Amino acid sequence: MQSYEILTVGSLAFDSISSPAGKADKVLGGSVNYFSVAASFFAPVQILGVVGEDFPTTHIDWLKSRKIDTSGVQVVPGKTFHWVGSYDQNLNEAKTLSTALNVFEHFDPKLSAKHQDVDYVFLANIDPVLQESVLNQVKAPKLIALDSMNFWITGKPDEVKRVLKRVDILSINEGEAFLLSGEKNLIRASEIIRGMGPSVLIVKRGEYGAMLFTPSGIFLAPAFPVATVVDPTGAGDSFAGAFMGYLASQRAERDWAKTDPKKWDDTLRRAVLAGCTTASFTVEDFSLHRLMRLEAKELDARQKELHQMIRFG
Amino acid sequence: MQSYEILTVGSLAFDSISSPAGKADKVLGGSVNYFSVAASFFAPVQILGVVGEDFPTTHIDWLKSRKIDTSGVQVVPGKTFHWVGSYDQNLNEAKTLSTALNVFEHFDPKLSAKHQDVDYVFLANIDPVLQESVLNQVKAPKLIALDSMNFWITGKPDEVKRVLKRVDILSINEGEAFLLSGEKNLIRASEIIRGMGPSVLIVKRGEYGAMLFTPSGIFLAPAFPVATVVDPTGAGDSFAGAFMGYLASQRAERDWAKTDPKKWDDTLRRAVLAGCTTASFTVEDFSLHRLMRLEAKELDARQKELHQMIRFG
Repeated sequence: MQSYEILTVGSLAFDSISSPAGKADKVLGGSVNYFSVAASFFAPVQILGVVGEDFPTTHIDWLKSRKIDTSGVQVVPGKTFHWVGSYDQNLNEAKTLSTALNVFEHFDPKLSAKHQDVDYVFLANIDPVLQESVLNQVKAPKLIALDSMNFWITGKPDEVKRVLKRVDILSINEGEAFLLSGEKNLIRASEIIRGMGPSVLIVKRGEYGAMLFTPSGIFLAPAFPVATVVDPTGAGDSFAGAFMGYLASQRAERDWAKTDPKKWDDTLRRAVLAGCTTASFTVEDFSLHRLMRLEAKELDARQKELHQMIRFG
Repeated sequence: MQSYEILTVGSLAFDSISSPAGKADKVLGGSVNYFSVAASFFAPVQILGVVGEDFPTTHIDWLKSRKIDTSGVQVVPGKTFHWVGSYDQNLNEAKTLSTALNVFEHFDPKLSAKHQDVDYVFLANIDPVLQESVLNQVKAPKLIALDSMNFWITGKPDEVKRVLKRVDILSINEGEAFLLSGEKNLIRASEIIRGMGPSVLIVKRGEYGAMLFTPSGIFLAPAFPVATVVDPTGAGDSFAGAFMGYLASQRAERDWAKTDPKKWDDTLRRAVLAGCTTASFTVEDFSLHRLMRLEAKELDARQKELHQMIRFG
């Protein structure tokens, strides 16, 4: 069975991070990086983004070696997006120390004919106006998912709500779900948010896992418990990458919600578990380090372990 | 199949609570109350505790109507233990405003012949010296479980460690597990704690559920998501009550770990889910209000719902 192909748009960045486990200066980061590497374990990926002339071509070459289509990465004069953040003992929340958008400030995604024909779209956390522009350019995707953040929910609420009407799946964290819905309880928040457009909602809860809300009900997925969390950066994007990748590998599409709701729900559940498992590797080291040396058989083994941790006889 | 019988020792109290949902003044509380009512859905329970003359006899009568053996409740001159606490928006953590031990200060559990013959013992969160005294009085229980808290782990660490050597199951919350083990990661903390005596460890995580560590591995159980959390007080004791009650209904015993490890692990997992489900009712109202009007069929229905929320096809 041939996987569907995924197009993702978002950031390629340098991150400087400090956590209780140590420091990493100007390492590779950005949603597109985490998403595409995680997704590439399951399905082919095309990426859209912009970098400055300081971005290492060796990394672009490495992505290509993973069969990630990097033709949508624009290299422009200037510096690459640079995020500086830190984590205290509570590894669930990052504190942003500085954000230098640099070349990302004038990013305007232009889709090639190949990009436009893609099966799946994942709109990582960027300006909702750009997310909408991508949706205006793709032809007939079988599934559209979106991530966002407090900055856009507060700053461009109308644009966020407009683009939400056009997506099938929204993947956000707990605090963002509270902010978007105006509700402090996830059951009530999920009802409000699913009323805004996406029929499927994923609420990411860091070390506590993820909740999946579908037309068929609720699925509660735990995070895979790791012995040492070094750097949680990119866990959410890795989750989303593996989640979409798994769906693509099963050739899932939105119509299943009508034609075979049980299959749709089951496939979404397994996709969430694939996301949880993959993200658990990301947090074991800084940057993409762990993900880049991850082998398919390790991922498989941990996936089975996680399944064992939630089954009951 | 006749259930095993459970003996529990701990507090019967008045609680005054404020939470974002409102206030409740001098309502019924205490670990023994929550534990025994929750356990009584599954198995017979005997309770040990002390109350003052101000404690309502109507409540003791109500417990009796649930077939809870209250012969171990001493009524002595003076006032009943009174706890005053509050919760902010983060409903996972209580803030203690005042504690009046009153008659509880001189509590010394004396076991009758019937108490001494009991099958299961649950030592709720009280002075580890009293917990040990109970263990010195029971004859040959098939299973012993214990709860504790920061106050004792910090104040009487040697006594806590001594009693831990004699128990099969420890049920504590996340912060207590960190404090007891000196580790900030639950995987590492669980190894250290299980080395102290209890072969089974349950880590309660409030709205995020519970983790079960057994000789066979790890089980990750979510909390049942409720639409409105009114008062989390007693959730942990209700969890423990249903957990022990379920085990008692299955006539589980520590020897299963050797004779049938799969059955032992499976039964512990189902017991944890029974605990999560029962505790989810407790938090829906102040005090024991929701638990006291809970019907077996409601509990069954929600148990099935929770099972659906974690199964994957």
